[in-house]
Amino acid sequence: MNISHDTLQHFDAVDAYPTRLPDREQITPRRDPVLWSDWSEAAPISRDEAEHYRENGYLVRRDMFSPDELELLVDTAKHLRDTDADKRPADFVTEPNSDDVRTVFRLDEHSPLFARLAADTRLAGVAEFLLNDRVYLHQSRLNYKPGFKGKEFYWHSDFETWHAEDGLPRMRAVSASVLLTDNSSTNGPLMLIPGSQGEFIACLGETPDDNHESSLKAQEVGVPQPDTITRFAQHFGLDTATGPTGTVVFFDCNTLHGSNGNITPDPRSNAFFVFNAVTNRPVSPFAASKPRPQWLANRELIQPIDPIEGRLTRG
Amino acid sequence: MNISHDTLQHFDAVDAYPTRLPDREQITPRRDPVLWSDWSEAAPISRDEAEHYRENGYLVRRDMFSPDELELLVDTAKHLRDTDADKRPADFVTEPNSDDVRTVFRLDEHSPLFARLAADTRLAGVAEFLLNDRVYLHQSRLNYKPGFKGKEFYWHSDFETWHAEDGLPRMRAVSASVLLTDNSSTNGPLMLIPGSQGEFIACLGETPDDNHESSLKAQEVGVPQPDTITRFAQHFGLDTATGPTGTVVFFDCNTLHGSNGNITPDPRSNAFFVFNAVTNRPVSPFAASKPRPQWLANRELIQPIDPIEGRLTRG
Repeated sequence: MNISHDTLQHFDAVDAYPTRLPDREQITPRRDPVLWSDWSEAAPISRDEAEHYRENGYLVRRDMFSPDELELLVDTAKHLRDTDADKRPADFVTEPNSDDVRTVFRLDEHSPLFARLAADTRLAGVAEFLLNDRVYLHQSRLNYKPGFKGKEFYWHSDFETWHAEDGLPRMRAVSASVLLTDNSSTNGPLMLIPGSQGEFIACLGETPDDNHESSLKAQEVGVPQPDTITRFAQHFGLDTATGPTGTVVFFDCNTLHGSNGNITPDPRSNAFFVFNAVTNRPVSPFAASKPRPQWLANRELIQPIDPIEGRLTRG
Repeated sequence: MNISHDTLQHFDAVDAYPTRLPDREQITPRRDPVLWSDWSEAAPISRDEAEHYRENGYLVRRDMFSPDELELLVDTAKHLRDTDADKRPADFVTEPNSDDVRTVFRLDEHSPLFARLAADTRLAGVAEFLLNDRVYLHQSRLNYKPGFKGKEFYWHSDFETWHAEDGLPRMRAVSASVLLTDNSSTNGPLMLIPGSQGEFIACLGETPDDNHESSLKAQEVGVPQPDTITRFAQHFGLDTATGPTGTVVFFDCNTLHGSNGNITPDPRSNAFFVFNAVTNRPVSPFAASKPRPQWLANRELIQPIDPIEGRLTRG
């Protein structure tokens, strides 16, 4: 491996991953497993899938849902986005220059169907296996990016922010993105740096107050330096997670990822759930003056999920 | 074909493709061939390649240059971009917020090697065949887009602008892009709508004075309406032109194309030549108050090219 680690730092007991450093960026090895369970026949994914996740920090699973289930999810997402402007809760975020809904935060609280989806064994069951613990939702949202003018998302590790600004102590969380549109190589799919989950990039720059107000649009603090991304991409390569509607992409909280903008006519939409291990519940932020709001980082309603088997059904 | 044509319009003799309409967009069939020559054994491309170009409006040719030739081209491009700021001619355009050279216009005038490349049978020879005429350079440039922050280019037909603002009478021009970096699906490759070359989209909106000063950054006049792009993409599909350094992409002047932005570390660079048929030399602009400047649209130095066989060599 060409990426040289800094000489071993002394970590104190309360912060395994110091970040937002005032004077430098620093790369250290991950101190937690990626795949927390040993694979067995009882696992909800195959041995190859488990190994792929451990090595690459992500896993793409197709054909997880029936056509009926997909129709139900797509219809329900459309219905949520079509909520009249005067009836929308504050969790509904619109486009900068229009009334079109771009993101619905706390998706599981706004939609029984999407709450049921999050709890499904195909999501929460897999998350439990990957993390070897009971899980709860740290964040959930419905994303909708229109065609023609979809914006890029720059390279970042989610964990770096969740640790610095939300207080998640360890790398024991996984995101699941359920594609609600087809995602091809041309409409700005998720790009990942496979293997990057094994390195913690402590970022340069202290956290401004209320950083999330600007970082959701374009992240400037908590992102790796360009030279570091270049070295990682050269060493590990770049993967792209594409697939038809219904594809589920699981990715470790520390896998570097981003996406290009999208001028094609094809919109992108997904339901996005962050599962955190119940033993990894948030403490005080490690590098911010106060926690982000509840709709971005759940700390008040930590409800372990009981995974549910069976098909999603209407009503 | 689902794209319905407007009822046949009367075109007068001087404008085969009225555009920049004050009140509407209008789609009419192309009135010129795409492939102007009949294929024969003597052609510089295969029969399949000629047919692909005619049907799809573009052609990707790989392995056209030897490693020595590619090294020479890449080195020379780097040398041009590294010209000291105080020695750069006005044709060198820099990034908005830095001194880095982004585009070198009139590339053939600034570099004997790139002038030689343009005249090569592998470029000018193929262009002569496609257009069935002698050819000259309407525009030439070296493009360099850095990684991480490469901007998108929105969908457009080059011919629409060259007709409206430069006065090219008919669709008898072809662009050749010689890739000077690898271009993959992730670093914002050229996307094309195959078959779109057969339809002329007369665009909505009159041309502002000095439109090129803003249109080179983000084109707003002379682009199809989003619904039209959606219909075209649904009907024709989207193709992507990727390939290693040295790949040559020929595309007809009326093929709709664009490219996404690029957050990957991999820059994109290409040498870009527009070959116009000598019988299609520019007249007064069809929909602008005055022609664009010489460095964007050559009207003063219309020199038919004598195609040159053989390898590119240093000096």
